[in-house]
Amino acid sequence: MNGNRFGRLFQVTTYGESHGEAMGVTVSGCPAGLELSEEDVQRDLDRRKPGQSMITTSRNEPDAVTINSGIQDGYTTGTPIGMIIQNKDARSGKYEPFVTAPRPSHGDFTYSAKFGTRNWGGGGRSSARETVNWVAAGAVAKKILAERGIELKAHVNQIGDVRADEVNFEELVERSEENEVRCADPDAADEMLAAIDEYQREGDSIGGSIYFETRGVPRGLGAPRFDSVEARLGQAMLAIPATTAFEFGLGKEAREWAGSDRNDEWKFDSNGDPKPASNRHGGLQGGITTGEPIYGEVTLHAPTSIPKTQTTVDWETGEEKEVQVIGRHDPVLPPRGVPVVEAVLALTLVDFMLLGGYINPDRLDDRPGEYDTKYHPTAPDE
Amino acid sequence: MNGNRFGRLFQVTTYGESHGEAMGVTVSGCPAGLELSEEDVQRDLDRRKPGQSMITTSRNEPDAVTINSGIQDGYTTGTPIGMIIQNKDARSGKYEPFVTAPRPSHGDFTYSAKFGTRNWGGGGRSSARETVNWVAAGAVAKKILAERGIELKAHVNQIGDVRADEVNFEELVERSEENEVRCADPDAADEMLAAIDEYQREGDSIGGSIYFETRGVPRGLGAPRFDSVEARLGQAMLAIPATTAFEFGLGKEAREWAGSDRNDEWKFDSNGDPKPASNRHGGLQGGITTGEPIYGEVTLHAPTSIPKTQTTVDWETGEEKEVQVIGRHDPVLPPRGVPVVEAVLALTLVDFMLLGGYINPDRLDDRPGEYDTKYHPTAPDE
Amino acid sequence: MNGNRFGRLFQVTTYGESHGEAMGVTVSGCPAGLELSEEDVQRDLDRRKPGQSMITTSRNEPDAVTINSGIQDGYTTGTPIGMIIQNKDARSGKYEPFVTAPRPSHGDFTYSAKFGTRNWGGGGRSSARETVNWVAAGAVAKKILAERGIELKAHVNQIGDVRADEVNFEELVERSEENEVRCADPDAADEMLAAIDEYQREGDSIGGSIYFETRGVPRGLGAPRFDSVEARLGQAMLAIPATTAFEFGLGKEAREWAGSDRNDEWKFDSNGDPKPASNRHGGLQGGITTGEPIYGEVTLHAPTSIPKTQTTVDWETGEEKEVQVIGRHDPVLPPRGVPVVEAVLALTLVDFMLLGGYINPDRLDDRPGEYDTKYHPTAPDE
Amino acid sequence: MNGNRFGRLFQVTTYGESHGEAMGVTVSGCPAGLELSEEDVQRDLDRRKPGQSMITTSRNEPDAVTINSGIQDGYTTGTPIGMIIQNKDARSGKYEPFVTAPRPSHGDFTYSAKFGTRNWGGGGRSSARETVNWVAAGAVAKKILAERGIELKAHVNQIGDVRADEVNFEELVERSEENEVRCADPDAADEMLAAIDEYQREGDSIGGSIYFETRGVPRGLGAPRFDSVEARLGQAMLAIPATTAFEFGLGKEAREWAGSDRNDEWKFDSNGDPKPASNRHGGLQGGITTGEPIYGEVTLHAPTSIPKTQTTVDWETGEEKEVQVIGRHDPVLPPRGVPVVEAVLALTLVDFMLLGGYINPDRLDDRPGEYDTKYHPTAPDE
Repeated sequence: MNGNRFGRLFQVTTYGESHGEAMGVTVSGCPAGLELSEEDVQRDLDRRKPGQSMITTSRNEPDAVTINSGIQDGYTTGTPIGMIIQNKDARSGKYEPFVTAPRPSHGDFTYSAKFGTRNWGGGGRSSARETVNWVAAGAVAKKILAERGIELKAHVNQIGDVRADEVNFEELVERSEENEVRCADPDAADEMLAAIDEYQREGDSIGGSIYFETRGVPRGLGAPRFDSVEARLGQAMLAIPATTAFEFGLGKEAREWAGSDRNDEWKFDSNGDPKPASNRHGGLQGGITTGEPIYGEVTLHAPTSIPKTQTTVDWETGEEKEVQVIGRHDPVLPPRGVPVVEAVLALTLVDFMLLGGYINPDRLDDRPGEYDTKYHPTAPDE
Repeated sequence: MNGNRFGRLFQVTTYGESHGEAMGVTVSGCPAGLELSEEDVQRDLDRRKPGQSMITTSRNEPDAVTINSGIQDGYTTGTPIGMIIQNKDARSGKYEPFVTAPRPSHGDFTYSAKFGTRNWGGGGRSSARETVNWVAAGAVAKKILAERGIELKAHVNQIGDVRADEVNFEELVERSEENEVRCADPDAADEMLAAIDEYQREGDSIGGSIYFETRGVPRGLGAPRFDSVEARLGQAMLAIPATTAFEFGLGKEAREWAGSDRNDEWKFDSNGDPKPASNRHGGLQGGITTGEPIYGEVTLHAPTSIPKTQTTVDWETGEEKEVQVIGRHDPVLPPRGVPVVEAVLALTLVDFMLLGGYINPDRLDDRPGEYDTKYHPTAPDE
Repeated sequence: MNGNRFGRLFQVTTYGESHGEAMGVTVSGCPAGLELSEEDVQRDLDRRKPGQSMITTSRNEPDAVTINSGIQDGYTTGTPIGMIIQNKDARSGKYEPFVTAPRPSHGDFTYSAKFGTRNWGGGGRSSARETVNWVAAGAVAKKILAERGIELKAHVNQIGDVRADEVNFEELVERSEENEVRCADPDAADEMLAAIDEYQREGDSIGGSIYFETRGVPRGLGAPRFDSVEARLGQAMLAIPATTAFEFGLGKEAREWAGSDRNDEWKFDSNGDPKPASNRHGGLQGGITTGEPIYGEVTLHAPTSIPKTQTTVDWETGEEKEVQVIGRHDPVLPPRGVPVVEAVLALTLVDFMLLGGYINPDRLDDRPGEYDTKYHPTAPDE
Repeated sequence: MNGNRFGRLFQVTTYGESHGEAMGVTVSGCPAGLELSEEDVQRDLDRRKPGQSMITTSRNEPDAVTINSGIQDGYTTGTPIGMIIQNKDARSGKYEPFVTAPRPSHGDFTYSAKFGTRNWGGGGRSSARETVNWVAAGAVAKKILAERGIELKAHVNQIGDVRADEVNFEELVERSEENEVRCADPDAADEMLAAIDEYQREGDSIGGSIYFETRGVPRGLGAPRFDSVEARLGQAMLAIPATTAFEFGLGKEAREWAGSDRNDEWKFDSNGDPKPASNRHGGLQGGITTGEPIYGEVTLHAPTSIPKTQTTVDWETGEEKEVQVIGRHDPVLPPRGVPVVEAVLALTLVDFMLLGGYINPDRLDDRPGEYDTKYHPTAPDE
């Protein structure tokens, strides 16, 4: 309702603004008995944190996490996991001259329109800094998935008009963290870096997109309609600041495909269960997982904070004025967005896993054997 | 959780399968005092119903709605509105030969994987027939919006590789219902019809997309992050059967735009309030409405039920087999999807309106006058 | 939010007023594969329906249920179950003289205060008639529980100052449906009937209470705090019209007990698991089931519709006036409330069962064996 | 779902165990522009904190709150308010001999049964220490209510068999904090203290109850049925550790009242609006507020931690054993429970206020004037 909660059984609740004391996230619904340490969480926070390279903001945040609850002897207890990350480098001064003038294409004006007040301290709640909470929660989700043999990875597949070649899952995993752009195609990564550098030198910024893919997700997860995997995943992906598009499978391109080309036929897998002969459906049919990899793409527009001169209005003076948003800002979002997309994907999948493949499968045992239209595939985890 | 609910304060709950007795929808949270009749709802149901033209299924469903509750003397009472639509032409026979074999790219297999049973009666819950409920609920939402001067409209902007020209909002409203494809560009509509006809004659189907746009949505609706307008709207749009992509504003194209080109500068409106000088942001900044039109696009893949021969597997015989999905199926989805997209958009907007622009605006009255960084735009409705 | 929904995974959504076309309820989250027919539901509806005896309203409602969805070949499919019950005997005339005057202690005034309109058609949404939906949904829940060996029963344990003797569970089950009052103590039942008769002859009504008890509920259901079994059960019980008190275990009397008297010591059960040596805790400790019977009590005040003369105000005339609420009303609520209390109990328990005893118990397998403080009781269902 | 969340629009999310690093609570949905400081919160925390007197545990916790977000220049911003309270005096040693044996009537066994693990560090999540979070959140809610002229107060009205005389609201407010028991009847307070002292000296504990009452709650708050004020308030009250009964108005006693005695007749108030002539209904009719004071009672059983010898079982040895729960425990709960009950009441009321009296009242403006059965009382706040 208020934008700081995600998940049904695996529940994430966040707080924090860029200018406040600390960021915080509560993870509730994590199964008991999971081995979990602050280091597990820190690893992903370090991938998202600022100041990693020339193409990220120079704001100096160690982003060190403290786990306040939910752990005993190194294992989760089943009770809520409270985590905080202190804000160390929140500049205390007001963002003059933006106290009485909205920055172009920021949330400044709309937050005022909604809350009737002016959050002058930088991006406040709308700052991408808030996604530090998501990455912390996502690290817990990733550990649960890893124990079950479920893998997921994202990388940057386009910056401006520079597009990466398609990569297979192994390449995605191995190469995407080897360069500053987090692109698994090294040649494209070089080109992307050059492009980013140029925009940055011109006081400008540029958009891009992130591709994600999974391995090992069991079939039967999800629900029809409003709780389909794509609906819930799309909601969370579109909640990432600056996202303007979400797609899975063939995505937007699907509109040009004939049914006979797009449909995936069925064959048998080694267990004798039906298995799609191809994966143009992106791992989801009827909103529910087929067991094939889930893959898709998220588009992030260019950062709105740019040194280039722009026009805004000052409601104190009633005058238009020229402004430059000078600060510690990223010239491009996808490289730091990769761990955020992964976190969102992990959180969504764990939530669906806790909701279960079957609702209560053992209830089927006493179904009459002669009910011949029943089909019950091998259990999801086998 | 179970896929049949949408909305926070304006709550929609649905039931019904293509083979059952009736479809049903409960709308709860509708304000009291709204003039509402079955005719208001029927109007939109007629736009969605099958058998309208050659390019829609010939299933013969009058889709006549009955309102069971929530109305007194022609006005809503504030209590839940229960509606049902009888299934008149549900063929009772099993969809042989699909009782023991999943149709390619349908939800047949995944529903079995989730529920451990076989819904042999056509699409069952996964049938697009279920969206009749959404359109009925959406008709209520549209009436609420209309009273407030909020308009919305969708049309088909692409079928296969035939793309409509851009149209302005007046053209969108006036022309989109004048042809069977529901495309506001008449020339493109002719080309689309010809293309659909060709796919249909080949026993095939084709994908397409739907564009939507609003007028008059007040600023300040929405919430940060997980409850941003794009997150909630995207969730609902991606819940529409066959949707593979959702975008708003510049959408996927945003990845190629520089920040200086994409950012919308600010000017003053006639009230002296800040107003974006352009609308590349698609009506949403920081997840909250700016007051500018919200616009975006939804991609629907080709219908999966096609007469063309395809391969599937039969779990009874353990053999692969060739199948043809012969029945009463649409060769293309967007023309009947237009009222569904409009319904989803209306439901989402009404829900955000009930949640309010300001949370409790009058609480601000006693704020100290000298708190000069406060900015309080003119109330959303003025 | 709007009062017509209950349950987290086993979700009930209702609509309907006493004067409308029909009552309706959607049950979502019911496991697939449950044998279910309209007769299963009808059985409980018949226990709640009006006109059963002299001590119930003479309104003539067959309360025949139709199941519109969610069933195939006599088994649930896992998709939402939509049910409707037509209103046959809703008197169409307005309840003069109450159109412009609130009946004493009804919801007339508060519904106007909330919705700004006047529901003149009898109790409307606030009518106890609405609980027909709960009983229909509860019948589905009871079938699920019965398959798992979980039993529950309620009876009337007090009317006015006539109190039933304590009965054991077998007596409760066997005798409570043998008399019109639904009291398992036959002597008290006779006295209650006599008392009711006297109040009725005086144009008056009287309060009472309902006792409930379970058998076979597994341990480990529930959650800490806001989702404790008592919190969720209490919420639903207090939603029953006319309820003014809810208690479990020793209930209100617990305030007079010393800790050493109230505490239940531990012994071993036949599996070698800890088991409480007594059950003063009412089956719940820390909000979670111990495996012992859950028992408690609900108080229902006297029906507010009485023929005796009372004073109210008419907002049209601005005058006070004397009124008599003459109609088809029950002189006492608990006898027809028994199936409602049972339904609420069944719905609550099934919801907790679907949420699971353990969250994901198999995750514990790889816990180090030497972690000696871990204790893992025998699985709940064994 | 997981027990750490409460509220629909005014949302509270908590974490923390008695043995962890810190307790934490996130309040989301608080209106922007509320003046709020750590001192405002600390005031109520000090009333709940341990070590206040001889009848409270000697655990030494300053319970100092830190607000991490949601505040700017001393006013709320409308974004989530994150608060933490460090655990300073959590004894690190395991609670021998209870690591492998459940304490009688604690949540030890049921938490193991649910989570499959053993929280040996004292009460863990089930500890009453967790209500420190509720009191912190409640302090925010109380400030919102106070600004609107809404008052609420609770006191201890019974300990063991010592019952306080009835007090009026002014006495309740003025006297209830003047003694260690928090009882507004000074003579009863003395007797209660003496009784507690006696139980404590015997190594025992005793139960009691808390009475609450409001002033100034507007009419029209609440919703029918599952979201009635009593249902939501009851849920939250029954979530307080050790609660075994909740009632409002005449409560349990209502079962002995005839309708003609219990019904509250109507008169006109000074605005010419209907007003109940008496308040046996406890401020609620049809689940919605009448504008009269809401009052009720909560029963808390005796603390389960007592030095007296009790029997339990050790699952390591497989033997029964005699144990004494020696630690820093309260001999009675209500005195420290008073601020908790007040917090729960404040949280519930603010949540209903944000949901609104009318849903969207201005929608009624264009209702036809001749619709004469409409009644629209003076707006709730006037």
